[in-house]
Amino acid sequence: MNELYDIAIIGSGVAGLQAAINATIRKKNIIVFGNKNLSTKLVKAHRIDNYLGFYGKSGSEIAQAFQEHIQAMNIEITEEKITAVYPNGDSFMLAGAGNMYEARKVILASGVELTRSIENEADFLGMGVSYCATCDAPLYKGRSVVVVGYSEESIHEANYIAEIAEHVDFVPVNVKTDDLKSSINVVKDVPLRIEGEQSATRLVLKNQTLNTDGIFVLRDSVEPSQLVNGLEIEDGHIKVNRQMETNFHGLFAAGDCTGKPYQYMKAAGEGHVAGLSAVDQIDKENAGIQ
Amino acid sequence: MNELYDIAIIGSGVAGLQAAINATIRKKNIIVFGNKNLSTKLVKAHRIDNYLGFYGKSGSEIAQAFQEHIQAMNIEITEEKITAVYPNGDSFMLAGAGNMYEARKVILASGVELTRSIENEADFLGMGVSYCATCDAPLYKGRSVVVVGYSEESIHEANYIAEIAEHVDFVPVNVKTDDLKSSINVVKDVPLRIEGEQSATRLVLKNQTLNTDGIFVLRDSVEPSQLVNGLEIEDGHIKVNRQMETNFHGLFAAGDCTGKPYQYMKAAGEGHVAGLSAVDQIDKENAGIQ
Repeated sequence: MNELYDIAIIGSGVAGLQAAINATIRKKNIIVFGNKNLSTKLVKAHRIDNYLGFYGKSGSEIAQAFQEHIQAMNIEITEEKITAVYPNGDSFMLAGAGNMYEARKVILASGVELTRSIENEADFLGMGVSYCATCDAPLYKGRSVVVVGYSEESIHEANYIAEIAEHVDFVPVNVKTDDLKSSINVVKDVPLRIEGEQSATRLVLKNQTLNTDGIFVLRDSVEPSQLVNGLEIEDGHIKVNRQMETNFHGLFAAGDCTGKPYQYMKAAGEGHVAGLSAVDQIDKENAGIQ
Repeated sequence: MNELYDIAIIGSGVAGLQAAINATIRKKNIIVFGNKNLSTKLVKAHRIDNYLGFYGKSGSEIAQAFQEHIQAMNIEITEEKITAVYPNGDSFMLAGAGNMYEARKVILASGVELTRSIENEADFLGMGVSYCATCDAPLYKGRSVVVVGYSEESIHEANYIAEIAEHVDFVPVNVKTDDLKSSINVVKDVPLRIEGEQSATRLVLKNQTLNTDGIFVLRDSVEPSQLVNGLEIEDGHIKVNRQMETNFHGLFAAGDCTGKPYQYMKAAGEGHVAGLSAVDQIDKENAGIQ
Protein backbone atom coordinates (compact mmCIF):
# COMPACT_ATOMS: atom_id res chain seq x y z
CA MET A 1 0.00 0.00 0.00
CA ASN A 2 1.18 3.50 -0.80
CA GLU A 3 1.97 6.00 1.92
CA LEU A 4 -1.01 8.30 2.44
CA TYR A 5 0.19 11.91 2.44
CA ASP A 6 -1.88 14.62 4.06
CA ILE A 7 -1.20 17.06 1.26
CA ALA A 8 0.39 16.71 -2.17
CA ILE A 9 1.58 19.93 -3.76
CA ILE A 10 2.14 19.97 -7.50
CA GLY A 11 4.63 22.70 -8.34
CA SER A 12 7.74 24.14 -6.72
CA GLY A 13 7.29 27.78 -7.63
CA VAL A 14 6.41 30.47 -5.13
CA ALA A 15 2.82 29.29 -4.63
CA GLY A 16 3.80 25.68 -4.02
CA LEU A 17 6.60 26.60 -1.61
CA GLN A 18 4.47 28.97 0.45
CA ALA A 19 1.75 26.29 0.69
CA ALA A 20 4.41 23.77 1.75
CA ILE A 21 5.71 26.09 4.47
CA ASN A 22 2.28 26.53 5.99
CA ALA A 23 1.44 22.84 5.83
CA THR A 24 4.78 21.99 7.46
CA ILE A 25 4.29 24.50 10.28
CA ARG A 26 0.90 22.91 10.85
CA LYS A 27 2.63 19.51 11.09
CA LYS A 28 1.14 17.94 8.01
CA ASN A 29 2.80 15.13 6.11
CA ILE A 30 3.39 16.59 2.66
CA ILE A 31 4.99 15.79 -0.68
CA VAL A 32 6.01 18.51 -3.13
CA PHE A 33 6.43 17.62 -6.80
CA GLY A 34 8.59 19.94 -8.83
CA ASN A 35 12.10 20.93 -9.63
CA LYS A 36 14.94 21.05 -7.10
CA ASN A 37 15.94 24.33 -8.78
CA LEU A 38 12.47 25.62 -7.89
CA SER A 39 11.05 27.72 -10.69
CA THR A 40 13.04 28.36 -13.85
CA LYS A 41 11.03 31.54 -14.35
CA LEU A 42 12.14 32.85 -10.94
CA VAL A 43 15.80 32.05 -11.40
CA LYS A 44 15.87 33.80 -14.77
CA ALA A 45 14.31 37.05 -13.51
CA HIS A 46 16.80 39.88 -13.83
CA ARG A 47 15.60 42.00 -10.92
CA ILE A 48 12.55 41.82 -8.68
CA ASP A 49 11.40 44.87 -6.71
CA ASN A 50 7.81 43.97 -5.96
CA TYR A 51 8.20 41.27 -3.31
CA LEU A 52 7.95 43.07 0.02
CA GLY A 53 11.12 42.58 2.02
CA PHE A 54 13.47 42.22 -0.95
CA TYR A 55 14.53 45.27 -2.91
CA GLY A 56 16.88 45.37 -5.85
CA LYS A 57 17.62 41.64 -5.74
CA SER A 58 17.94 39.36 -8.74
CA GLY A 59 15.66 36.41 -9.24
CA SER A 60 18.48 34.01 -8.39
CA GLU A 61 19.24 35.85 -5.12
CA ILE A 62 15.61 35.60 -4.09
CA ALA A 63 15.49 31.97 -5.20
CA GLN A 64 18.51 31.38 -2.96
CA ALA A 65 16.63 32.85 0.02
CA PHE A 66 13.68 30.60 -0.80
CA GLN A 67 15.98 27.56 -0.99
CA GLU A 68 17.47 28.37 2.40
CA HIS A 69 13.98 28.79 3.83
CA ILE A 70 12.68 25.41 2.71
CA GLN A 71 15.93 23.64 3.57
CA ALA A 72 15.77 25.05 7.11
CA MET A 73 12.31 23.52 7.38
CA ASN A 74 13.39 20.21 5.79
CA ILE A 75 10.99 20.57 2.92
CA GLU A 76 12.10 18.35 0.04
CA ILE A 77 11.17 18.48 -3.61
CA THR A 78 10.33 15.26 -5.43
CA GLU A 79 11.46 15.53 -9.04
CA GLU A 80 8.71 13.55 -10.67
CA LYS A 81 6.20 14.92 -13.14
CA ILE A 82 2.62 14.26 -12.17
CA THR A 83 0.60 13.58 -15.29
CA ALA A 84 -2.84 12.90 -13.82
CA VAL A 85 -4.80 13.38 -10.60
CA TYR A 86 -7.77 11.12 -9.88
CA PRO A 87 -10.38 11.69 -7.16
CA ASN A 88 -10.56 8.51 -5.11
CA GLY A 89 -13.26 8.77 -2.45
CA ASP A 90 -11.76 10.66 0.49
CA SER A 91 -8.38 11.01 -1.16
CA PHE A 92 -6.70 11.56 -4.51
CA MET A 93 -4.40 9.33 -6.54
CA LEU A 94 -1.57 11.05 -8.40
CA ALA A 95 0.07 9.38 -11.37
CA GLY A 96 3.77 10.08 -11.69
CA ALA A 97 6.32 8.48 -13.99
CA GLY A 98 5.89 4.86 -12.96
CA ASN A 99 4.68 5.58 -9.42
CA MET A 100 1.26 6.30 -7.98
CA TYR A 101 0.95 8.57 -4.95
CA GLU A 102 -2.00 9.05 -2.61
CA ALA A 103 -2.89 12.21 -0.71
CA ARG A 104 -5.92 13.42 1.22
CA LYS A 105 -5.66 16.91 -0.25
CA VAL A 106 -4.00 18.20 -3.40
CA ILE A 107 -2.82 21.71 -4.21
CA LEU A 108 -2.28 22.49 -7.87
CA ALA A 109 0.46 25.11 -8.16
CA SER A 110 1.87 24.14 -11.50
CA GLY A 111 2.04 27.57 -13.09
CA VAL A 112 1.03 28.32 -16.65
CA GLU A 113 2.40 27.18 -19.91
CA LEU A 114 2.86 30.20 -22.10
CA THR A 115 2.73 27.98 -25.17
CA ARG A 116 -0.56 26.98 -26.72
CA SER A 117 -1.57 23.37 -27.04
CA ILE A 118 -1.37 21.69 -30.42
CA GLU A 119 -4.68 21.33 -32.24
CA ASN A 120 -6.43 18.03 -31.35
CA GLU A 121 -3.83 17.29 -28.67
CA ALA A 122 -6.41 16.85 -25.92
CA ASP A 123 -8.64 14.68 -28.12
CA PHE A 124 -5.88 12.14 -28.78
CA LEU A 125 -4.51 12.10 -25.22
CA GLY A 126 -4.11 8.42 -24.26
CA MET A 127 -4.78 7.49 -27.88
CA GLY A 128 -1.35 7.91 -29.37
CA VAL A 129 -0.59 11.17 -27.54
CA SER A 130 1.36 10.97 -24.28
CA TYR A 131 2.79 13.50 -21.81
CA CYS A 132 5.00 11.00 -20.02
CA ALA A 133 8.07 9.35 -21.52
CA THR A 134 8.75 7.12 -18.51
CA CYS A 135 5.15 5.88 -18.46
CA ASP A 136 4.54 5.28 -22.11
CA ALA A 137 7.87 4.81 -23.94
CA PRO A 138 7.72 1.03 -23.40
CA LEU A 139 4.59 0.94 -25.58
CA TYR A 140 6.68 2.00 -28.56
CA LYS A 141 9.39 -0.66 -28.48
CA GLY A 142 10.65 -1.07 -32.05
CA ARG A 143 8.22 1.52 -33.37
CA SER A 144 8.40 5.10 -34.61
CA VAL A 145 7.52 8.15 -32.50
CA VAL A 146 7.57 11.93 -32.69
CA VAL A 147 8.58 13.98 -29.66
CA VAL A 148 7.54 17.63 -29.46
CA GLY A 149 9.88 19.08 -26.84
CA TYR A 150 9.20 22.36 -25.04
CA SER A 151 11.49 21.97 -22.02
CA GLU A 152 15.10 21.16 -21.26
CA GLU A 153 13.84 18.08 -19.50
CA SER A 154 12.29 16.92 -22.79
CA ILE A 155 15.81 16.39 -24.21
CA HIS A 156 16.57 13.77 -21.55
CA GLU A 157 13.18 12.20 -22.00
CA ALA A 158 13.66 11.98 -25.76
CA ASN A 159 17.05 10.30 -25.23
CA TYR A 160 15.32 7.74 -23.01
CA ILE A 161 12.61 7.15 -25.60
CA ALA A 162 15.31 6.64 -28.26
CA GLU A 163 16.67 3.70 -26.26
CA ILE A 164 13.38 1.92 -26.75
CA ALA A 165 11.77 3.15 -29.96
CA GLU A 166 13.12 2.27 -33.40
CA HIS A 167 12.96 5.82 -34.76
CA VAL A 168 12.53 9.19 -33.02
CA ASP A 169 11.74 12.51 -34.68
CA PHE A 170 12.26 15.46 -32.32
CA VAL A 171 10.49 18.79 -32.97
CA PRO A 172 12.05 21.43 -30.69
CA VAL A 173 9.99 24.40 -29.50
CA ASN A 174 12.28 27.05 -27.98
CA VAL A 175 14.71 24.46 -26.71
CA LYS A 176 18.34 23.66 -27.57
CA THR A 177 18.97 20.22 -29.04
CA ASP A 178 22.75 19.96 -28.52
CA ASP A 179 22.40 17.18 -25.95
CA LEU A 180 20.10 15.00 -28.03
CA LYS A 181 21.45 11.58 -29.01
CA SER A 182 22.77 11.52 -32.57
CA SER A 183 20.29 8.77 -33.50
CA ILE A 184 17.42 11.22 -33.04
CA ASN A 185 16.22 13.08 -36.10
CA VAL A 186 15.72 16.78 -35.35
CA VAL A 187 12.91 18.40 -37.32
CA LYS A 188 13.01 22.19 -37.14
CA ASP A 189 9.44 23.11 -37.95
CA VAL A 190 6.29 24.39 -36.25
CA PRO A 191 3.74 21.86 -34.94
CA LEU A 192 0.22 22.72 -36.01
CA ARG A 193 -2.15 19.78 -35.69
CA ILE A 194 -2.42 16.14 -34.69
CA GLU A 195 -4.36 13.83 -36.99
CA GLY A 196 -5.35 10.19 -37.11
CA GLU A 197 -8.34 7.86 -37.16
CA GLN A 198 -8.60 5.65 -34.02
CA SER A 199 -5.36 7.07 -32.69
CA ALA A 200 -2.83 9.76 -33.50
CA THR A 201 -0.79 8.80 -36.56
CA ARG A 202 0.24 12.11 -38.10
CA LEU A 203 1.78 15.33 -36.81
CA VAL A 204 1.10 18.12 -39.28
CA LEU A 205 3.84 20.74 -39.19
CA LYS A 206 3.94 24.02 -41.04
CA ASN A 207 6.07 22.65 -43.87
CA GLN A 208 5.63 18.88 -43.72
CA THR A 209 3.68 16.04 -42.13
CA LEU A 210 5.33 13.34 -39.99
CA ASN A 211 3.80 9.87 -39.97
CA THR A 212 4.20 8.11 -36.64
CA ASP A 213 3.01 5.45 -34.24
CA GLY A 214 2.76 7.88 -31.35
CA ILE A 215 3.41 11.46 -30.29
CA PHE A 216 5.01 12.63 -27.02
CA VAL A 217 4.25 16.23 -26.09
CA LEU A 218 6.75 17.15 -23.38
CA ARG A 219 6.29 20.47 -21.59
CA ASP A 220 7.41 21.55 -18.13
CA SER A 221 3.91 21.09 -16.78
CA VAL A 222 0.67 19.51 -17.81
CA GLU A 223 -2.39 21.69 -18.50
CA PRO A 224 -4.59 21.58 -15.40
CA SER A 225 -7.65 20.62 -17.46
CA GLN A 226 -5.74 17.57 -18.69
CA LEU A 227 -4.25 16.87 -15.27
CA VAL A 228 -7.65 16.56 -13.58
CA ASN A 229 -10.62 15.36 -15.57
CA GLY A 230 -13.66 17.58 -14.92
CA LEU A 231 -11.72 20.43 -13.34
CA GLU A 232 -13.66 23.66 -13.77
CA ILE A 233 -11.80 26.18 -15.92
CA GLU A 234 -12.74 29.82 -16.38
CA ASP A 235 -11.11 32.07 -18.99
CA GLY A 236 -8.32 29.52 -19.43
CA HIS A 237 -7.45 29.25 -15.72
CA ILE A 238 -8.52 27.03 -12.86
CA LYS A 239 -11.63 28.45 -11.23
CA VAL A 240 -11.18 28.95 -7.48
CA ASN A 241 -13.03 30.74 -4.72
CA ARG A 242 -11.43 33.01 -2.11
CA GLN A 243 -10.36 29.95 -0.09
CA MET A 244 -8.58 28.69 -3.23
CA GLU A 245 -10.93 25.70 -3.53
CA THR A 246 -11.60 24.25 -6.98
CA ASN A 247 -14.84 22.49 -7.90
CA PHE A 248 -13.50 19.27 -6.30
CA HIS A 249 -13.69 18.97 -2.50
CA GLY A 250 -10.13 18.67 -1.22
CA LEU A 251 -8.52 19.98 -4.40
CA PHE A 252 -7.06 23.48 -4.24
CA ALA A 253 -5.14 25.66 -6.67
CA ALA A 254 -2.82 28.62 -6.28
CA GLY A 255 -0.51 30.83 -8.30
CA ASP A 256 -0.35 31.48 -12.02
CA CYS A 257 -2.61 28.53 -12.81
CA THR A 258 -5.56 30.39 -11.21
CA GLY A 259 -5.13 33.50 -13.35
CA LYS A 260 -3.33 36.78 -13.80
CA PRO A 261 -1.39 38.70 -12.57
CA TYR A 262 1.41 36.16 -13.10
CA GLN A 263 3.51 37.54 -10.25
CA TYR A 264 5.34 36.15 -7.25
CA MET A 265 3.53 37.92 -4.46
CA LYS A 266 0.13 37.08 -5.86
CA ALA A 267 1.24 33.46 -6.09
CA ALA A 268 2.71 33.48 -2.58
CA GLY A 269 -0.48 34.90 -1.06
CA GLU A 270 -2.61 32.32 -2.83
CA GLY A 271 -0.27 29.48 -1.90
CA HIS A 272 -0.52 30.62 1.69
CA VAL A 273 -4.31 30.53 1.68
CA ALA A 274 -4.45 27.23 -0.24
CA GLY A 275 -2.06 25.63 2.26
CA LEU A 276 -4.08 26.77 5.24
CA SER A 277 -7.39 25.83 3.63
CA ALA A 278 -6.12 22.28 3.03
CA VAL A 279 -4.78 22.08 6.60
CA ASP A 280 -8.07 23.33 8.04
CA GLN A 281 -10.03 20.78 6.04
CA ILE A 282 -7.85 17.97 7.35
CA ASP A 283 -8.05 19.23 10.94
CA LYS A 284 -11.83 19.44 10.74
CA GLU A 285 -12.12 15.98 9.25
CA ASN A 286 -9.80 14.57 11.91
CA ALA A 287 -12.02 16.15 14.55
CA GLY A 288 -15.08 14.51 12.99
CA ILE A 289 -16.50 17.76 11.57
CA GLN A 290 -17.36 17.40 7.89
CA MET B 1 -7.95 72.65 -4.87
CA ASN B 2 -6.59 69.46 -3.34
CA GLU B 3 -3.98 67.40 -5.10
CA LEU B 4 -5.63 64.52 -6.91
CA TYR B 5 -3.79 61.30 -6.07
CA ASP B 6 -4.06 58.30 -8.34
CA ILE B 7 -4.37 55.90 -5.42
CA ALA B 8 -4.87 56.40 -1.70
CA ILE B 9 -3.95 53.45 0.48
CA ILE B 10 -5.38 53.31 3.99
CA GLY B 11 -3.12 51.18 6.15
CA SER B 12 0.62 50.62 6.45
CA GLY B 13 0.64 46.93 7.26
CA VAL B 14 1.82 44.27 4.84
CA ALA B 15 -1.17 44.61 2.49
CA GLY B 16 -0.88 48.38 2.24
CA LEU B 17 2.86 48.30 1.67
CA GLN B 18 2.71 45.64 -1.04
CA ALA B 19 -0.03 47.61 -2.82
CA ALA B 20 2.12 50.75 -2.52
CA ILE B 21 5.13 48.99 -4.03
CA ASN B 22 3.17 47.85 -7.06
CA ALA B 23 1.54 51.22 -7.60
CA THR B 24 4.93 52.94 -7.35
CA ILE B 25 6.55 50.58 -9.83
CA ARG B 26 3.68 51.35 -12.17
CA LYS B 27 4.42 55.07 -11.72
CA LYS B 28 1.24 56.03 -9.95
CA ASN B 29 0.99 59.03 -7.66
CA ILE B 30 0.05 57.53 -4.30
CA ILE B 31 -0.51 58.47 -0.67
CA VAL B 32 -0.29 55.91 2.12
CA PHE B 33 -2.03 56.63 5.42
CA GLY B 34 -0.74 54.76 8.42
CA ASN B 35 1.98 54.57 10.97
CA LYS B 36 5.65 55.28 10.28
CA ASN B 37 6.37 52.24 12.46
CA LEU B 38 4.28 50.21 9.98
CA SER B 39 2.16 47.67 11.81
CA THR B 40 2.34 47.30 15.57
CA LYS B 41 1.17 43.71 15.18
CA LEU B 42 4.13 42.93 12.91
CA VAL B 43 6.73 44.53 15.14
CA LYS B 44 5.46 42.63 18.18
CA ALA B 45 5.59 39.20 16.50
CA HIS B 46 8.15 37.00 18.24
CA ARG B 47 9.15 34.87 15.28
CA ILE B 48 7.74 34.48 11.80
CA ASP B 49 8.52 31.39 9.72
CA ASN B 50 5.74 31.47 7.18
CA TYR B 51 6.78 34.34 4.95
CA LEU B 52 8.70 32.77 2.07
CA GLY B 53 12.24 34.11 1.94
CA PHE B 54 12.58 34.82 5.67
CA TYR B 55 13.15 31.99 8.10
CA GLY B 56 13.61 32.25 11.84
CA LYS B 57 13.39 36.04 11.87
CA SER B 58 11.58 38.14 14.45
CA GLY B 59 8.74 40.44 13.50
CA SER B 60 10.94 43.47 14.06
CA GLU B 61 13.68 42.09 11.78
CA ILE B 62 11.17 41.54 9.01
CA ALA B 63 9.64 44.96 9.65
CA GLN B 64 13.14 46.40 9.23
CA ALA B 65 13.45 44.71 5.83
CA PHE B 66 10.07 46.15 4.87
CA GLN B 67 11.15 49.62 6.01
CA GLU B 68 14.31 49.40 3.92
CA HIS B 69 12.27 48.27 0.94
CA ILE B 70 9.81 51.17 1.01
CA GLN B 71 12.53 53.71 1.81
CA ALA B 72 14.54 52.52 -1.20
CA MET B 73 11.46 53.22 -3.30
CA ASN B 74 10.77 56.59 -1.63
CA ILE B 75 7.39 55.48 -0.37
CA GLU B 76 6.31 57.72 2.52
CA ILE B 77 3.71 57.13 5.17
CA THR B 78 1.33 59.93 6.08
CA GLU B 79 0.48 59.67 9.78
CA GLU B 80 -3.08 60.86 9.61
CA LYS B 81 -6.08 58.77 10.54
CA ILE B 82 -8.72 58.63 7.83
CA THR B 83 -12.15 58.61 9.43
CA ALA B 84 -14.38 58.56 6.37
CA VAL B 85 -14.25 57.83 2.64
CA TYR B 86 -16.86 59.37 0.34
CA PRO B 87 -17.49 58.38 -3.27
CA ASN B 88 -17.35 61.57 -5.34
CA GLY B 89 -18.15 60.87 -8.98
CA ASP B 90 -14.98 59.58 -10.61
CA SER B 91 -12.93 59.92 -7.43
CA PHE B 92 -13.13 59.56 -3.68
CA MET B 93 -12.80 62.14 -0.90
CA LEU B 94 -11.00 61.01 2.25
CA ALA B 95 -11.57 62.82 5.52
CA GLY B 96 -8.50 63.01 7.73
CA ALA B 97 -7.92 65.00 10.90
CA GLY B 98 -8.58 68.47 9.55
CA ASN B 99 -7.61 67.71 5.94
CA MET B 100 -9.54 66.30 3.03
CA TYR B 101 -7.73 64.24 0.41
CA GLU B 102 -8.85 63.23 -3.05
CA ALA B 103 -7.88 60.08 -4.93
CA ARG B 104 -9.13 58.33 -8.05
CA LYS B 105 -8.84 54.90 -6.44
CA VAL B 106 -8.79 53.84 -2.79
CA ILE B 107 -7.39 50.66 -1.27
CA LEU B 108 -8.65 49.77 2.20
CA ALA B 109 -5.90 47.87 4.03
CA SER B 110 -6.68 48.93 7.56
CA GLY B 111 -6.54 45.54 9.23
CA VAL B 112 -9.03 44.33 11.77
CA GLU B 113 -9.87 45.55 15.20
CA LEU B 114 -9.93 42.58 17.49
CA THR B 115 -12.18 44.49 19.91
CA ARG B 116 -15.92 44.61 19.41
CA SER B 117 -17.74 47.87 18.91
CA ILE B 118 -19.72 49.34 21.78
CA GLU B 119 -23.47 48.81 21.59
CA ASN B 120 -25.20 51.70 19.72
CA GLU B 121 -21.83 53.17 18.74
CA ALA B 122 -22.64 53.20 15.04
CA ASP B 123 -26.11 54.67 15.62
CA PHE B 124 -24.75 57.72 17.44
CA LEU B 125 -21.77 58.29 15.13
CA GLY B 126 -21.77 62.03 14.30
CA MET B 127 -24.41 62.56 16.97
CA GLY B 128 -22.25 62.79 20.04
CA VAL B 129 -19.94 59.92 19.08
CA SER B 130 -16.69 60.77 17.29
CA TYR B 131 -13.67 58.79 16.09
CA CYS B 132 -11.47 61.84 15.55
CA ALA B 133 -10.09 64.03 18.32
CA THR B 134 -8.49 66.55 15.98
CA CYS B 135 -11.68 66.95 13.99
CA ASP B 136 -14.23 67.17 16.75
CA ALA B 137 -12.54 68.21 20.00
CA PRO B 138 -13.21 71.92 19.24
CA LEU B 139 -16.95 71.18 19.47
CA TYR B 140 -16.52 70.40 23.16
CA LYS B 141 -14.83 73.60 24.37
CA GLY B 142 -15.72 74.05 28.01
CA ARG B 143 -17.84 70.89 28.05
CA SER B 144 -17.55 67.36 29.40
CA VAL B 145 -16.50 64.36 27.33
CA VAL B 146 -15.72 60.68 27.75
CA VAL B 147 -12.84 59.10 25.82
CA VAL B 148 -12.80 55.34 25.32
CA GLY B 149 -9.18 54.63 24.42
CA TYR B 150 -8.06 51.41 22.72
CA SER B 151 -4.69 52.50 21.34
CA GLU B 152 -1.50 54.15 22.52
CA GLU B 153 -2.31 56.98 20.16
CA SER B 154 -5.56 57.54 22.08
CA ILE B 155 -3.52 58.75 25.07
CA HIS B 156 -2.10 61.63 23.05
CA GLU B 157 -5.48 62.37 21.57
CA ALA B 158 -7.08 62.45 25.01
CA ASN B 159 -4.39 64.86 26.20
CA TYR B 160 -5.23 67.11 23.26
CA ILE B 161 -8.95 66.92 24.03
CA ALA B 162 -8.21 67.83 27.65
CA GLU B 163 -6.70 71.13 26.49
CA ILE B 164 -10.07 72.11 25.09
CA ALA B 165 -12.79 70.32 27.08
CA GLU B 166 -13.65 71.27 30.65
CA HIS B 167 -13.70 67.67 31.92
CA VAL B 168 -12.41 64.42 30.42
CA ASP B 169 -13.17 60.92 31.65
CA PHE B 170 -10.87 58.30 30.09
CA VAL B 171 -11.91 54.65 29.92
CA PRO B 172 -8.86 52.59 28.96
CA VAL B 173 -9.27 49.32 27.05
CA ASN B 174 -6.00 47.34 27.12
CA VAL B 175 -3.91 50.49 27.15
CA LYS B 176 -1.55 52.01 29.71
CA THR B 177 -2.58 55.40 31.07
CA ASP B 178 0.76 56.54 32.58
CA ASP B 179 1.18 59.32 30.04
CA LEU B 180 -2.28 60.81 30.48
CA LYS B 181 -2.43 64.37 31.82
CA SER B 182 -3.20 64.47 35.53
CA SER B 183 -6.34 66.53 34.87
CA ILE B 184 -7.92 63.54 33.11
CA ASN B 185 -10.09 61.27 35.22
CA VAL B 186 -9.28 57.60 34.54
CA VAL B 187 -12.26 55.26 34.88
CA LYS B 188 -11.22 51.63 34.98
CA ASP B 189 -14.39 49.88 33.90
CA VAL B 190 -15.82 48.04 30.90
CA PRO B 191 -17.81 50.02 28.30
CA LEU B 192 -21.08 48.32 27.43
CA ARG B 193 -23.53 50.67 25.75
CA ILE B 194 -24.05 54.21 24.53
CA GLU B 195 -27.38 55.87 25.35
CA GLY B 196 -29.08 59.18 24.71
CA GLU B 197 -32.07 60.75 23.03
CA GLN B 198 -31.15 63.05 20.09
CA SER B 199 -27.47 62.51 20.73
CA ALA B 200 -25.18 60.38 22.91
CA THR B 201 -25.32 61.59 26.51
CA ARG B 202 -24.52 58.51 28.56
CA LEU B 203 -21.86 55.79 28.45
CA VAL B 204 -23.07 52.77 30.37
CA LEU B 205 -20.18 50.84 31.91
CA LYS B 206 -20.33 47.55 33.73
CA ASN B 207 -20.33 49.18 37.18
CA GLN B 208 -21.46 52.75 36.56
CA THR B 209 -22.90 55.18 34.03
CA LEU B 210 -21.03 58.31 32.90
CA ASN B 211 -23.08 61.36 31.87
CA THR B 212 -21.39 63.36 29.14
CA ASP B 213 -21.72 65.85 26.30
CA GLY B 214 -19.89 63.62 23.87
CA ILE B 215 -17.99 60.36 23.51
CA PHE B 216 -14.74 59.81 21.63
CA VAL B 217 -14.07 56.20 20.66
CA LEU B 218 -10.39 56.03 19.72
CA ARG B 219 -9.10 52.83 18.17
CA ASP B 220 -6.12 52.23 15.89
CA SER B 221 -8.41 51.99 12.91
CA VAL B 222 -11.99 52.70 12.02
CA GLU B 223 -14.35 49.84 11.19
CA PRO B 224 -14.62 49.62 7.40
CA SER B 225 -18.41 49.70 7.52
CA GLN B 226 -18.19 53.02 9.34
CA LEU B 227 -15.37 54.28 7.15
CA VAL B 228 -17.38 53.89 3.94
CA ASN B 229 -21.13 54.23 4.04
CA GLY B 230 -22.79 51.42 2.07
CA LEU B 231 -19.72 49.20 1.91
CA GLU B 232 -20.76 45.58 1.51
CA ILE B 233 -19.75 43.46 4.47
CA GLU B 234 -19.90 39.66 4.62
CA ASP B 235 -19.35 37.70 7.84
CA GLY B 236 -17.87 40.77 9.48
CA HIS B 237 -15.33 41.50 6.73
CA ILE B 238 -15.27 43.58 3.58
CA LYS B 239 -16.67 41.58 0.69
CA VAL B 240 -14.26 41.44 -2.24
CA ASN B 241 -13.95 39.47 -5.44
CA ARG B 242 -10.76 37.81 -6.71
CA GLN B 243 -9.57 41.15 -8.10
CA MET B 244 -9.99 42.59 -4.58
CA GLU B 245 -12.80 44.91 -5.72
CA THR B 246 -15.45 45.94 -3.21
CA ASN B 247 -19.02 46.81 -4.20
CA PHE B 248 -17.86 50.36 -5.11
CA HIS B 249 -16.13 50.86 -8.46
CA GLY B 250 -12.62 52.08 -7.77
CA LEU B 251 -12.61 50.98 -4.13
CA PHE B 252 -10.49 47.94 -3.29
CA ALA B 253 -9.64 46.12 -0.08
CA ALA B 254 -6.81 43.82 0.98
CA GLY B 255 -5.43 42.09 4.03
CA ASP B 256 -7.05 41.24 7.35
CA CYS B 257 -10.03 43.53 6.66
CA THR B 258 -11.19 41.14 3.92
CA GLY B 259 -11.20 38.08 6.18
CA LYS B 260 -9.15 35.29 7.67
CA PRO B 261 -6.47 33.97 7.77
CA TYR B 262 -5.04 37.05 9.48
CA GLN B 263 -1.52 36.41 8.21
CA TYR B 264 1.19 38.38 6.50
CA MET B 265 1.55 36.42 3.30
CA LYS B 266 -2.17 36.35 2.69
CA ALA B 267 -2.23 40.11 3.22
CA ALA B 268 0.78 40.66 0.96
CA GLY B 269 -0.74 38.63 -1.87
CA GLU B 270 -4.02 40.51 -1.62
CA GLY B 271 -2.27 43.88 -1.41
CA HIS B 272 -0.37 42.94 -4.53
CA VAL B 273 -3.52 42.14 -6.47
CA ALA B 274 -5.40 45.19 -5.12
CA GLY B 275 -2.53 47.46 -6.14
CA LEU B 276 -2.41 46.06 -9.66
CA SER B 277 -6.19 46.09 -10.04
CA ALA B 278 -6.27 49.79 -9.11
CA VAL B 279 -3.40 50.53 -11.49
CA ASP B 280 -5.07 48.64 -14.33
CA GLN B 281 -8.33 50.52 -13.79
CA ILE B 282 -6.50 53.85 -14.00
CA ASP B 283 -4.55 52.82 -17.09
CA LYS B 284 -7.72 51.70 -18.83
CA GLU B 285 -9.54 54.89 -17.94
CA ASN B 286 -6.60 56.98 -19.14
CA ALA B 287 -6.71 55.09 -22.42
CA GLY B 288 -10.42 55.84 -22.72
CA ILE B 289 -11.56 52.26 -22.02
CA GLN B 290 -14.24 52.20 -19.35
